[in-house]
Amino acid sequence: MLEEKVKKVIRDIPDYPKKGIIFKDITTLLNNAEVFKEVIDYFAKKYKDIDFVCGIESRGFIFGSAIAYAINKGFVPLRKKGKLPYTTVSEKYALEYGFDEIEIHIDAFKDIKNPKILLVDDLIATGGTAEAAVKLIQKIGGIVVAAGFVIELTFLDGAKKIRDLGIKVDSIAKY
Amino acid sequence: MLEEKVKKVIRDIPDYPKKGIIFKDITTLLNNAEVFKEVIDYFAKKYKDIDFVCGIESRGFIFGSAIAYAINKGFVPLRKKGKLPYTTVSEKYALEYGFDEIEIHIDAFKDIKNPKILLVDDLIATGGTAEAAVKLIQKIGGIVVAAGFVIELTFLDGAKKIRDLGIKVDSIAKY
Repeated sequence: MLEEKVKKVIRDIPDYPKKGIIFKDITTLLNNAEVFKEVIDYFAKKYKDIDFVCGIESRGFIFGSAIAYAINKGFVPLRKKGKLPYTTVSEKYALEYGFDEIEIHIDAFKDIKNPKILLVDDLIATGGTAEAAVKLIQKIGGIVVAAGFVIELTFLDGAKKIRDLGIKVDSIAKY
Repeated sequence: MLEEKVKKVIRDIPDYPKKGIIFKDITTLLNNAEVFKEVIDYFAKKYKDIDFVCGIESRGFIFGSAIAYAINKGFVPLRKKGKLPYTTVSEKYALEYGFDEIEIHIDAFKDIKNPKILLVDDLIATGGTAEAAVKLIQKIGGIVVAAGFVIELTFLDGAKKIRDLGIKVDSIAKY
């Protein structure tokens, strides 16, 4: 089963980035060609009919772009404020202390009407980033078909935030 | 011809990130499914026999991971200092003012002896980042077979830095 395979190759890093947190290191999944391919294929098989894959900077780029390639669709990066060179819309989201902001190019979906979007990130925790990403995509006319994550930290309940927006959450490895 | 196709979809952003610079915006390539696929396939066809693809944060992640998927190999991210959670080696490189630093996990190539590596980034300018990336890969035992770029700014002569290390530079769109 894919969930077990994925969990087996993800590396736990205790006390990173700070004491008491066990960080889920996905680099040991990425350098495992077989499991990396299966993760990409899992999403590629289910979301063939979307128009664009949106990936959140920067680990979401890794999974999102490979999925876009696999289904022969365009890839759209959602980036931290100030990183996209053309005209953007932006959305703030709360962090533990303060806030952060992500952006999308206003013409990211070109001239396609009501484009169907798969949103991708490596992990969903509190769901703050993913919620901001959904709002950004909607602001420029995208229809988020699903939000896909390799890892879901279920005890932080971020998926509920996304489902409350009426959007399907599709995660592989649940902790 | 691929070079012409790529140049046609890359967007020029004048005066970004500062006055007098014409920034090459690749997001208009990424959201073009056909050209994006052709760029990935260009590298995938030529470097089937490598062991890992290394991508430089963060636009190098977008191209590198899709290439890794296409040839069914593992992907290894080279990240800005402080972003990789496990033990790393790092390498500084000069910027116009000051310096920056990138890192790689010490066990990124697992237990493979003399792994063959394709290094990928979106763009080579002065070559400082790519040179640091090559040194990092070599520090942990990797053999860089080639450094692939979607864009090469030839007037900045960065490719020479990489060729002087005995490494092939393979770029698609030359300006």
